[in-house]
Amino acid sequence: MYRKYFDPLDYNLSADFRLTKLSDLKADKNGYGDGQHHQGLIPESKPTPVVGIGLDSCVIPIRHGGLFLVQSTAFFYPLVDDPYVMGKIACANVLSDVYAMGAVEVDNMLMLLSTSNKMTDKERDIIMPLILQGFKECAEEAGTTVQGGQTVINPWLIVGGVATAVCTQNEIIIPENAIVGDVLVLTKPLGTQVAVNAHQWLENPDRWNRIKSVITEDDVRKAYQRAMNSMARLNKIGASLMHKYNAHACTDVTGFGLLGHAQNLAKHQKHDVSFVIHNLPIIAKMATISKACGNAFGLLQGTSAETSGGLLVVLPREQAAAYCKDIQAQEGYQAWIIGVVEKGGRTAKIIDKPRIIEVPAKDTEGELW
Amino acid sequence: MYRKYFDPLDYNLSADFRLTKLSDLKADKNGYGDGQHHQGLIPESKPTPVVGIGLDSCVIPIRHGGLFLVQSTAFFYPLVDDPYVMGKIACANVLSDVYAMGAVEVDNMLMLLSTSNKMTDKERDIIMPLILQGFKECAEEAGTTVQGGQTVINPWLIVGGVATAVCTQNEIIIPENAIVGDVLVLTKPLGTQVAVNAHQWLENPDRWNRIKSVITEDDVRKAYQRAMNSMARLNKIGASLMHKYNAHACTDVTGFGLLGHAQNLAKHQKHDVSFVIHNLPIIAKMATISKACGNAFGLLQGTSAETSGGLLVVLPREQAAAYCKDIQAQEGYQAWIIGVVEKGGRTAKIIDKPRIIEVPAKDTEGELW
Repeated sequence: MYRKYFDPLDYNLSADFRLTKLSDLKADKNGYGDGQHHQGLIPESKPTPVVGIGLDSCVIPIRHGGLFLVQSTAFFYPLVDDPYVMGKIACANVLSDVYAMGAVEVDNMLMLLSTSNKMTDKERDIIMPLILQGFKECAEEAGTTVQGGQTVINPWLIVGGVATAVCTQNEIIIPENAIVGDVLVLTKPLGTQVAVNAHQWLENPDRWNRIKSVITEDDVRKAYQRAMNSMARLNKIGASLMHKYNAHACTDVTGFGLLGHAQNLAKHQKHDVSFVIHNLPIIAKMATISKACGNAFGLLQGTSAETSGGLLVVLPREQAAAYCKDIQAQEGYQAWIIGVVEKGGRTAKIIDKPRIIEVPAKDTEGELW
Repeated sequence: MYRKYFDPLDYNLSADFRLTKLSDLKADKNGYGDGQHHQGLIPESKPTPVVGIGLDSCVIPIRHGGLFLVQSTAFFYPLVDDPYVMGKIACANVLSDVYAMGAVEVDNMLMLLSTSNKMTDKERDIIMPLILQGFKECAEEAGTTVQGGQTVINPWLIVGGVATAVCTQNEIIIPENAIVGDVLVLTKPLGTQVAVNAHQWLENPDRWNRIKSVITEDDVRKAYQRAMNSMARLNKIGASLMHKYNAHACTDVTGFGLLGHAQNLAKHQKHDVSFVIHNLPIIAKMATISKACGNAFGLLQGTSAETSGGLLVVLPREQAAAYCKDIQAQEGYQAWIIGVVEKGGRTAKIIDKPRIIEVPAKDTEGELW
């Protein structure tokens, strides 16, 4: 239970969601991440709440050989009970921003770590190496290494990192080319925040009483396992296949929720388009919980924060099904066509009564999905 | 007085020094930053206390054009009262690790920031933009930009960053070529930790009583100003001139103190050499304070932590004076020959009674140095 090193009395929302709380903070208009344009490439950096939602990674032309630097950074507080899995999730989430740009060959990762000054030596010696190991193994799975980083002491445990890819221009997909008739694909189900919170409520009778009439403990535990599995999964194959199937734009879904990231992506399009979302694939039973909580999570409104969520990919209509099928073939995970690109003013919306897709549709004995 | 967002009751040493406290933490032997060798280049990452002292930056060959990725990251807690200066210091310190490798063209910086949940909204709206501004202006001075980063909330205020340079091999100085007869040059005076702490003691009668017989309040304030000026100063010119004067090796002096970093640099040499340090340039009066505290800081032993310290450069004997003179001409700051390279077993030491060089030698009315 190393989560106690992040004090829920101080703050009890999921890590990514907390970020939006900073959006009031006014920075110098010329301040960081506010986007100087670079040769027509993506001007803006990773969403920094300080300056509002931007795009996923910075893409910077370097002095050498027409190459570009694609970088992202993120750090997190403990979100799940298992430190090894937390390391993997943090790593997958940092990489996801780079993958969203189509860059799949990451040259290096740095790791940012803070132990908690409230840990005993023994706790620290068990927990921190597990986080390190999870982070490192996830980086290996991504075909990169973790070389460099820094560790400090802090009241709260922190785990984060930096991903850097040096790419040729054709390795990057500038996410601005959606056209009318394209479709929207999502590569992971929504609901990670709801699952993680519901799992915490198992230990909180007040909270549990609010939802126990609509869900069983077993269902919550299973949803939590699915959320962990999903958050720790890399978006690498989804990113790589964007090149094969000619994706026109992409973002990953994290702290601002599906709609927040869809709106942000829409805003950056070259053409007069809007995104309309019809379907919401959601980890099984999480829509039910969300409704029982009076939609406080915003899950069905697309505003529930996700950690290490899927890619939201804009694909030519005739390629989308093949893209989803290829992900299924290579990874064994479903992807879903969730919406369409229409003529419009660079906005995004979810239709009034979206279709909820329970993921998985039914439980299979002994299998997670 | 935004320093209150780093709680000194929890930890009252200077930021860098705290890192060494983590050195007991055992990581997986294959864990991060432990150095896989890359084509004869620097195998090891930035000193990560988790795995012991390494070298300053990671240097990683990338897939394209024989280029190398040089990266470093560091983050800090508030160390000085002025948030704008703190932003500059954090930026200068992150850049310093890359400069120590001879890489002077930095392609991008990311900024890592945490506001404190103990701040009022008003404090936050004043303090955080000042830190951002300091960081950003320092990056501009370095000829790079800050594009990307993340901001979170935390009990303690954190400011840090990532510096990335993509370099050709001849832009990097692999710090392993010291030979017998070389000399050691230091480009900033020591004593930043002592100066910062002494300045804090002005508000702590118990502590102040221990040193007030040896120093005046004015002297402490002046030393603090000098320390801030020194910590906020870039090591860029010192790094750039290493190429002109054929430096054989270099490291920057930070959390492990002059001797710690000298020993680490010695350990990585190709030849059978040792470093012997004869002179200690120290911010005026700080040696006196250190002695009055029973050498608790380790300043005269070379173990006092520095933040954003100078470069420790190994130069051919016949080039060293010209190197120092050139820094003086370009920047108006002194550099000092502090030691020699002898035959030995890759260690470093400070001689028994090193010469203390007071910096500046005497006060000039109206001037800092």
